[in-house]
Amino acid sequence: MNTSSIFGDMLQTIAKRGRKLLSFGWQPLPADGIGELERACENLLSRRGEASGMALAGDILERWRRSAQDDRRAFMAMLLEKFGPDPERLEKAIEAYRGERSPQTLRELHAAAEPRRQELIRRLNLAPNGIATLVRMREALLDQMASDRDLEAVDADFSHLFGSWFNRGFLVLTPIDWSAPANVLEKIIRYEAVHEIGDWNELRRRLDPEDRRCFAFFHPQLIDEPLIFVEVALTKSIPGSISELLSEARAPIRAEDATTATFYSISNCQDGLRGISFGNFLIKQVVEELRRDLPKLETFATLSPLPGFSRWLASEMDPASGALSDADRKSLELLGHPEWSSDPKTRATVEAAILPAAAHYLLRTRTQRGQPIDPVARFHLGNGARLERINFLADQSPRAMRQSHGVMVNYLYKLDDIEANHEAFVERGEVVAAAAVKRLLRNERAVRRALPAPEPEKQIESSSQNRELTS
Amino acid sequence: MNTSSIFGDMLQTIAKRGRKLLSFGWQPLPADGIGELERACENLLSRRGEASGMALAGDILERWRRSAQDDRRAFMAMLLEKFGPDPERLEKAIEAYRGERSPQTLRELHAAAEPRRQELIRRLNLAPNGIATLVRMREALLDQMASDRDLEAVDADFSHLFGSWFNRGFLVLTPIDWSAPANVLEKIIRYEAVHEIGDWNELRRRLDPEDRRCFAFFHPQLIDEPLIFVEVALTKSIPGSISELLSEARAPIRAEDATTATFYSISNCQDGLRGISFGNFLIKQVVEELRRDLPKLETFATLSPLPGFSRWLASEMDPASGALSDADRKSLELLGHPEWSSDPKTRATVEAAILPAAAHYLLRTRTQRGQPIDPVARFHLGNGARLERINFLADQSPRAMRQSHGVMVNYLYKLDDIEANHEAFVERGEVVAAAAVKRLLRNERAVRRALPAPEPEKQIESSSQNRELTS
Amino acid sequence: MNTSSIFGDMLQTIAKRGRKLLSFGWQPLPADGIGELERACENLLSRRGEASGMALAGDILERWRRSAQDDRRAFMAMLLEKFGPDPERLEKAIEAYRGERSPQTLRELHAAAEPRRQELIRRLNLAPNGIATLVRMREALLDQMASDRDLEAVDADFSHLFGSWFNRGFLVLTPIDWSAPANVLEKIIRYEAVHEIGDWNELRRRLDPEDRRCFAFFHPQLIDEPLIFVEVALTKSIPGSISELLSEARAPIRAEDATTATFYSISNCQDGLRGISFGNFLIKQVVEELRRDLPKLETFATLSPLPGFSRWLASEMDPASGALSDADRKSLELLGHPEWSSDPKTRATVEAAILPAAAHYLLRTRTQRGQPIDPVARFHLGNGARLERINFLADQSPRAMRQSHGVMVNYLYKLDDIEANHEAFVERGEVVAAAAVKRLLRNERAVRRALPAPEPEKQIESSSQNRELTS
Amino acid sequence: MNTSSIFGDMLQTIAKRGRKLLSFGWQPLPADGIGELERACENLLSRRGEASGMALAGDILERWRRSAQDDRRAFMAMLLEKFGPDPERLEKAIEAYRGERSPQTLRELHAAAEPRRQELIRRLNLAPNGIATLVRMREALLDQMASDRDLEAVDADFSHLFGSWFNRGFLVLTPIDWSAPANVLEKIIRYEAVHEIGDWNELRRRLDPEDRRCFAFFHPQLIDEPLIFVEVALTKSIPGSISELLSEARAPIRAEDATTATFYSISNCQDGLRGISFGNFLIKQVVEELRRDLPKLETFATLSPLPGFSRWLASEMDPASGALSDADRKSLELLGHPEWSSDPKTRATVEAAILPAAAHYLLRTRTQRGQPIDPVARFHLGNGARLERINFLADQSPRAMRQSHGVMVNYLYKLDDIEANHEAFVERGEVVAAAAVKRLLRNERAVRRALPAPEPEKQIESSSQNRELTS
Repeated sequence: MNTSSIFGDMLQTIAKRGRKLLSFGWQPLPADGIGELERACENLLSRRGEASGMALAGDILERWRRSAQDDRRAFMAMLLEKFGPDPERLEKAIEAYRGERSPQTLRELHAAAEPRRQELIRRLNLAPNGIATLVRMREALLDQMASDRDLEAVDADFSHLFGSWFNRGFLVLTPIDWSAPANVLEKIIRYEAVHEIGDWNELRRRLDPEDRRCFAFFHPQLIDEPLIFVEVALTKSIPGSISELLSEARAPIRAEDATTATFYSISNCQDGLRGISFGNFLIKQVVEELRRDLPKLETFATLSPLPGFSRWLASEMDPASGALSDADRKSLELLGHPEWSSDPKTRATVEAAILPAAAHYLLRTRTQRGQPIDPVARFHLGNGARLERINFLADQSPRAMRQSHGVMVNYLYKLDDIEANHEAFVERGEVVAAAAVKRLLRNERAVRRALPAPEPEKQIESSSQNRELTS
Repeated sequence: MNTSSIFGDMLQTIAKRGRKLLSFGWQPLPADGIGELERACENLLSRRGEASGMALAGDILERWRRSAQDDRRAFMAMLLEKFGPDPERLEKAIEAYRGERSPQTLRELHAAAEPRRQELIRRLNLAPNGIATLVRMREALLDQMASDRDLEAVDADFSHLFGSWFNRGFLVLTPIDWSAPANVLEKIIRYEAVHEIGDWNELRRRLDPEDRRCFAFFHPQLIDEPLIFVEVALTKSIPGSISELLSEARAPIRAEDATTATFYSISNCQDGLRGISFGNFLIKQVVEELRRDLPKLETFATLSPLPGFSRWLASEMDPASGALSDADRKSLELLGHPEWSSDPKTRATVEAAILPAAAHYLLRTRTQRGQPIDPVARFHLGNGARLERINFLADQSPRAMRQSHGVMVNYLYKLDDIEANHEAFVERGEVVAAAAVKRLLRNERAVRRALPAPEPEKQIESSSQNRELTS
Repeated sequence: MNTSSIFGDMLQTIAKRGRKLLSFGWQPLPADGIGELERACENLLSRRGEASGMALAGDILERWRRSAQDDRRAFMAMLLEKFGPDPERLEKAIEAYRGERSPQTLRELHAAAEPRRQELIRRLNLAPNGIATLVRMREALLDQMASDRDLEAVDADFSHLFGSWFNRGFLVLTPIDWSAPANVLEKIIRYEAVHEIGDWNELRRRLDPEDRRCFAFFHPQLIDEPLIFVEVALTKSIPGSISELLSEARAPIRAEDATTATFYSISNCQDGLRGISFGNFLIKQVVEELRRDLPKLETFATLSPLPGFSRWLASEMDPASGALSDADRKSLELLGHPEWSSDPKTRATVEAAILPAAAHYLLRTRTQRGQPIDPVARFHLGNGARLERINFLADQSPRAMRQSHGVMVNYLYKLDDIEANHEAFVERGEVVAAAAVKRLLRNERAVRRALPAPEPEKQIESSSQNRELTS
Repeated sequence: MNTSSIFGDMLQTIAKRGRKLLSFGWQPLPADGIGELERACENLLSRRGEASGMALAGDILERWRRSAQDDRRAFMAMLLEKFGPDPERLEKAIEAYRGERSPQTLRELHAAAEPRRQELIRRLNLAPNGIATLVRMREALLDQMASDRDLEAVDADFSHLFGSWFNRGFLVLTPIDWSAPANVLEKIIRYEAVHEIGDWNELRRRLDPEDRRCFAFFHPQLIDEPLIFVEVALTKSIPGSISELLSEARAPIRAEDATTATFYSISNCQDGLRGISFGNFLIKQVVEELRRDLPKLETFATLSPLPGFSRWLASEMDPASGALSDADRKSLELLGHPEWSSDPKTRATVEAAILPAAAHYLLRTRTQRGQPIDPVARFHLGNGARLERINFLADQSPRAMRQSHGVMVNYLYKLDDIEANHEAFVERGEVVAAAAVKRLLRNERAVRRALPAPEPEKQIESSSQNRELTS
């Protein structure tokens, strides 16, 4: 046989798995009650031999894929109720441990306390392409959880396993350009959550020009599915509005002439991987890639939305709230006019009041856990970025006008400071900001109330809760 | 048709990681006491931000790689003693669970009972190429365990995580031929555990002819390291001796003319993955690949060693043992002569006695768990193969003469029967064998003592304990 | 270094060349007169060392790329006038050959008669990516030739070299599916010449469903540029209309259920390679690929346009022409009504007359060279296909209504007959047709005039003259 | 970023072709007389359709591959005698051209003067993998030419076409390291022509250490066959002996610490491509690659053999020759002692005489064409290198002692001077040398005879005649 590399073959194999999966679609399965699925799951768990495990796992996943909404709900309920730990075994294990605190009794206690669904999920992953279906399964689970909080116990097991399987060590950062496969690119269109991509021509404008870059994380077992991606514009300065970057008419610059890399859109792709954080790794690694490729780059910054700003501002329009002065509040009432941004005078009035308000929103508000309430701010500040600039009327798309009255923010990633900024934020809840941003703050006395310290036990949820909120 | 350039990039990235890892070798690290490593591990565990976790994980792994034997022992001892569960937290969790059996208290109980080193190992895997070092780490751990059984608790955590990370769903079956990269092929030479490969010319004879095949499992994160591989000869009948297959002088046949695929060597490659079973999947999948490629293939069989036969036979030479007749025992004493196999008459005498003894060894002996005592037999029978034929003087290499007096066995994989054979073996401890093999049995009355039923709880250890024993 | 295959590297290298080429676009060159280009060309030809030839060749090609229409015309004129053979050398060579007919004098005669531009073009191809620019160059040349037939001499040299460089032995047949790179797919959209692809969604419908296939020929030096491609529908019978295949609403069938592969669109992509035939190889090879992949396929047919039919029919409306009966001519006058196809009665009248006319057009008309006047018919019949069926109102798109009043044709590729059909057509000008098609013929006596024998010297121009005409 | 999955498919296709080719080996062909081959060739040339051309071409090549030595000779004789130009057509074409000197008559004259075997060879290349066989064919042809100079006319046609097909624009420079496919690496072992590679361990020492590099040119249609390769050592200074580089005991340096890249072995791989020059491109491009990868590299030099030195020196031992002084001649007689290099005094005496002799050999001797008589010197000087240093006893292998009494040479590639050096050498026959080398010259008056100017018409034969002579 001739020069076919190991990898050629690996990829073929993975690709073939994908094809087969697709063609499953054609074999109608008999409708099964949930009871039959439960028996199949017990069967899979109890097998001592593995030879037929793959087939059985594949079969269970296939049934789930074909099942209707109601059956899926029943399936999750079954996982909750029937595949927890065995209470008797657990009781015995506790007794034994209390009797003698040995490594053996401890191991048995841990094993007995583990919900049986963990092993079940592991065995489902035996099926070719199992992981893809398991991710879809958790997507459905998260939906159900909205109305059924008990399912959190099931989700804890999915999360635990996904955290292990999607460990950073297994992810691969990959540049995405106009020569990427169409089946991957269509997902970029679909998953872009910050600045919508209308069609393939717009996609091309985001990927093909010399001064545009895009990077995604992939998992080797999900080869057609980006997990998270970031779009980058190479520029000569930090941009103050999104139209500078996305205008159809703009002239591209030469990549070598760029001094600044602007991250203007970060989107999580897989709802089923919510809470598994990739974003902080992504930015750090993309910065490294860009610096290697274009040594002249000096500045790494974002152009980011403030998704929670309008809502917060509305809540602060109550005179009882301390965040805004009466004068500013009055100015900001102008935002109620649908056409406020068309009138230069109104615009100026709003600008004078809204920038301090945004500074306050970013620097002074805190969640109960002691973090900024803006999710995108939490993300970048938690990554060690600095709050660099607040931009007025920087995004005039309907959504941005609705979410943040058009305000956007630049976060700056200064490599030498990232670690210190990150520590300051994580340990002490400090938001590092440029002097110009700090100067925007008013009413300093009013807000110098004790900010709550950040909640210590939980790891920073660095990947935002919601795809739309990132960047 | 589906493969994607995405992978070109992925593979490059993975390859680059490997390169970097190698070049670490050049940066001498200061010698560190174990205390410093412990602090680093605690630090890694306690970080709430992940930004610097990768670097820290990489640093710990690097220190471990550079550490001497003694420090490695101390490291494992540290994992055992310092990174178990937190006893106070566990005590509290037990109390809480006893107070109220809710999903919440159960989750906390499970979490509290989990040794902290599990999360530590997960975080070490954040480092680029971390998995490769973790596999080496367990290799060292298994060595230590030989003299320190307490470390089994640590190994349980490694095993647990490796079982998850090396889940069958993540492995890729890859054909290995003469166009494979040299750095992979040299590992085939190194890891071949059944029929030694002397040099590259011999390797070529195993891979290049049209009637030879080789397949390996790879994990996408260990791209230069086969996990397990099998060598296959395409033949026109089931071979009765290894020299038919490996003789330098033999004439290859056309692949299309073959009716039989003979698996004549299976080797596990990674000591650090001992107990993580790949072998049963491997054979099933290779059979499928071969059938797709060469539809004329009808028979799938092995030519396998009996690694434990000589030892067992020696123990049965005691007249008190019931397995052998006096006459046979007398004949088998001839094996003591170094040149017994050169004399036709002696050979015939031995043959008449040794084949029944081998049949008895395979069909009638049992371990305490109720399985055959020959590890290769356990492996293939557990996979659903049938014991097809016992071959006299089938391997005259010094090792084979020592281990099994030259006897080899064919196991037959008959696709339609695999499942039933497997069930019979696993559930009822039955060894399915060809009539001709069964007819070899003597003293049937003597051995019809009750065989112990197979031990039920443990999953079959389908991957042999020892690389040398497989196939 | 780690597992990067030879080919990974090869592809990277080729890809890098492409990138570099693109970025040339940014360096404005000083405007040069044609005189300077001529000197550069003479310089390139006269160099005895090659070290700097690549750079010089690259420079000349770059100047040409940047040159305006007029300069390009002047460049071609220069190739014609200044880079023919050296007349004195040729004269001497003729003398010498006449003096002594030796291999030496013959070689010199051949060398002296070769236009110097052949070697010039060869040396231009030294430049990285030179071939891509040379193809563009000939594209421009063919345009100019329309108004300046003297340039045919220059084109003969381009053709000669391209025939050698794009030799079938160098082309690679590649399946194109929805996972192909976007930069290749956009060319499929752009080059589709038979049934227009409106947008990416339509493209996806042509490539992604299980019952669709697409194949293209590529040249290893033009990796982003398909040379010719064919679109295939897998069906259960030979389709009689294009809407069956392209309707958005249609339900795909399973690939394994297909019995028929219908080639419904073949498009040449590179105007600069006009006359270099790929099409006949393409179909033969695609048939082989499909049969290997889907052994159940039995029938290979086309659904093809009749691009010259309306024009021919118009010319036959003159009663003096013998091809149509008066009655048919009358019926066909109905085609003049814009809405003729909406009225069932009119449709029936037209059908009865137009099918015999189409049969006549395909079976009886001949060019001066003795071939059918329909270029698509020439293509498929020359490849050894059989004229299988004529379909009424099979394509109601405006273009098809204009070109052929909606008539389409099925050509059948029956593997066992291809060779004989091809010989019959090439040697004796015979069109092999199904009985049902022949039965459509009227006025047989009238047309049994002696058909001219096909012109013997010229190789069949199997690739149509015009992209739009194929399939 | 640009690579494409298209290529995965392309490579697979090419690889498959190779496989098929190999398996041809199994189908015994009936022994055919040369007459049948001639008819097949005429048939291939005369076909107007191409549909069956591929098969016919494949068949002819296959017959040639299976043919014995004698039949191959007869085949070449046939190409010479039967497939030259058609004399009548040529006569007519000359008449016509004399009658009217038009583009048309000129084209016909050129066409008529072209040996018919050129088109025949082009059509043979239609066969899958045809090019590989055609290269073997010319290999055989070159052998025959040694005894039959008439075949030069046939070789001229092969050369002409190979020059076009193996145009630099089609070649791909590829790094070869220890992860390259074994079937490529075994060819590196086989083709190494300067410093033999004993086995795979030695190969590994040449490829794997961080301070070693190897690059090869490949043609996309010959993916398993390097065309030419160069081995490079990264060093801290220009080495004066080969043992410094190849000693098993040496300690590798870090690649980043290297300042010098030493090209210590260049080997042509394909005898069938003799005279098609790749070497000059190779060195220039490898220098570029290395500089990109390792920006600290400052010096690019060779450590090269003097393959013709001993022979020339022997011829100069005649006192009548003017190159050596009587004293030097006397000293050099010591070379006759087999053990001369073991005795320090003898060594010193020889050194004092042999270095000036080598300087004379390199700087002053000339072939009839006015070039240095040492082929390796011609190669590097023709590429624009400078003669930098002559090293005494630099290679003590038996072959080197025989060919050059152990003397080796460093040629220096100084990027800024390459072009000027090259021009000086090509245009004026000047050898650029370091002052220290020039100072070695004695008898300057004696040699200041007029050196012949380099022969103008022929392009420099930059690829040496003989594989063993390069580097």
